[in-house]
Amino acid sequence: MTESVDRQTAVLRLRGADDILILCHKNPDGDTVGSAGALYLALKQLGKNAAVLCSDPIPALYDYMKLRWYDGSFKPAFVVAVDVASIQLFGDRNDIPLYAEHTDLCIDHHATNSGYAYETLLDPGAAATCEFLLDVIVEMGVTITPEIANCLYTGIATDTGCFRFTNTTSRTHIAASRVMEAGADTEKLNERLFESRSHARLLAERMALESLEYFYDDRCALICLTWDQIRMSGVANAELEDLTSLPRSIEGVEVGLTFRQQPDGSFKISIRTAGAVNACNIARRLGGGGHARAAGCEISGNLDNAKHAVLEEVRKEFQRTGLLN
Amino acid sequence: MTESVDRQTAVLRLRGADDILILCHKNPDGDTVGSAGALYLALKQLGKNAAVLCSDPIPALYDYMKLRWYDGSFKPAFVVAVDVASIQLFGDRNDIPLYAEHTDLCIDHHATNSGYAYETLLDPGAAATCEFLLDVIVEMGVTITPEIANCLYTGIATDTGCFRFTNTTSRTHIAASRVMEAGADTEKLNERLFESRSHARLLAERMALESLEYFYDDRCALICLTWDQIRMSGVANAELEDLTSLPRSIEGVEVGLTFRQQPDGSFKISIRTAGAVNACNIARRLGGGGHARAAGCEISGNLDNAKHAVLEEVRKEFQRTGLLN
Repeated sequence: MTESVDRQTAVLRLRGADDILILCHKNPDGDTVGSAGALYLALKQLGKNAAVLCSDPIPALYDYMKLRWYDGSFKPAFVVAVDVASIQLFGDRNDIPLYAEHTDLCIDHHATNSGYAYETLLDPGAAATCEFLLDVIVEMGVTITPEIANCLYTGIATDTGCFRFTNTTSRTHIAASRVMEAGADTEKLNERLFESRSHARLLAERMALESLEYFYDDRCALICLTWDQIRMSGVANAELEDLTSLPRSIEGVEVGLTFRQQPDGSFKISIRTAGAVNACNIARRLGGGGHARAAGCEISGNLDNAKHAVLEEVRKEFQRTGLLN
Repeated sequence: MTESVDRQTAVLRLRGADDILILCHKNPDGDTVGSAGALYLALKQLGKNAAVLCSDPIPALYDYMKLRWYDGSFKPAFVVAVDVASIQLFGDRNDIPLYAEHTDLCIDHHATNSGYAYETLLDPGAAATCEFLLDVIVEMGVTITPEIANCLYTGIATDTGCFRFTNTTSRTHIAASRVMEAGADTEKLNERLFESRSHARLLAERMALESLEYFYDDRCALICLTWDQIRMSGVANAELEDLTSLPRSIEGVEVGLTFRQQPDGSFKISIRTAGAVNACNIARRLGGGGHARAAGCEISGNLDNAKHAVLEEVRKEFQRTGLLN
């Protein structure tokens, strides 16, 4: 089991370390990449040697973050994971399991953090890891440069759907205000992260809308993209991630399901819920996990069986909450 | 000409007044309604008699604001306009011109405010009138109740596209943080204001995506909905209005065109632009008008001719800006 540490201790560890390897979770999103980017730049500002590693490539969307990819040129003496809730979420490419198993410090905001690291700085009240990493970095004695501010804003804004999701708190807005004061170029970032949709993304959106189905008196909506469609459209994983909010955004829908077929034929399922319906309950019974409003799981087998299995768990969760008899 | 006043003076006027009529602008949006709702509740908390008037009905979307509609039951002794930039923007229904001409105090954030009121409290740096009305209300000695906070959050969030638009500043986030602390139910508000898309809207979106065409090296994107499609989908006008931002939001697109057929067969065309391309130049040459980034016109005749006419003007505007030979 991990040792829970407070911010001061985490800062001590980071200030005392060198040759630091920063690990992101697989299918990297804005918060894990933003956290890694901000922490890398902070450590660099303190004159330390550091680099970032991830099982998957960093999406081109985040190209503006000037992070250094770990190329094996130094032996990591300290491993820090950012925004990674469990050992499974590291993925298994790029030799990442070798390092992940010996994570010295994990900095995360997921209440479900499994405690895989030697020490963990957890803030489950934060909407994003970047939201409280700001305080960690300030306490490290680092000046928040515009570049660091851009990284932190990326994590805060992407994890909250640009301050729209229910995880957004007054603290989230304070953090956003502070990174803007520090020079985050939110005009460019918002345009890039939220306003700009690639041709491929639109194609995927069109296919998703064509696949839209409703269940349980329109309280559950489901979209599905097959691997052939994903491949054909050329849409990036991060853009697909964004699509997962679509079914839940439909009026009256309390459970939004997104099925994405993987190259091996299995389905990655994103569950988004509203009201009393718990997404994590549904995901857990299917071998997955996540948050109350956003969770996920993977199911192999054909689409009909996968749909049936998930819809059964949705029904049970509706029944638990008394929304369905 | 109006007298520019500071916050202290505006607060003095409001505290000294009674039988107060609060005026909104026509086609009321979240900021004018939110400002009116917050100010009404603040004046009521101070034991004053106040009511709200607008040329148009308050959209049902804002039903949660418990504002009192002016029914003529008292003779206004003090008229305050919120978020209204010029006398034309009051509209002319509900006898509003009678009162608007004698506006004692205007509280607004539009840099273009024409100065029609006797006194004006203007903060052009604020993203929304609600953003700085918060300070006015606090200085009036009013406690920001959750109901007032909901009104203020509505204005701040809607005028900034939920903190996405370029008018969002660090001050905007501070104001959002404060109204959340005061009890704004942002979970319900965001859901209501930003998350909810009707089945009809999704159907219209799907049809629009299916109609998507690119021109001029993908620098211009065009979507089109025929009257039959609009009628069949049952989508409301406000939801269609929202669709007009879609083509411009595509990566690399500098001119986004939305063609909506009217019941008489003619086409209403919305032009949205980015960069150096001027939407108003295009619209004006087709008998329409608008702003540099958003303009519109109407063209009768068949779709092919309408498309041809608009694309010709787009070409000329591209040429003017040197984007096309």
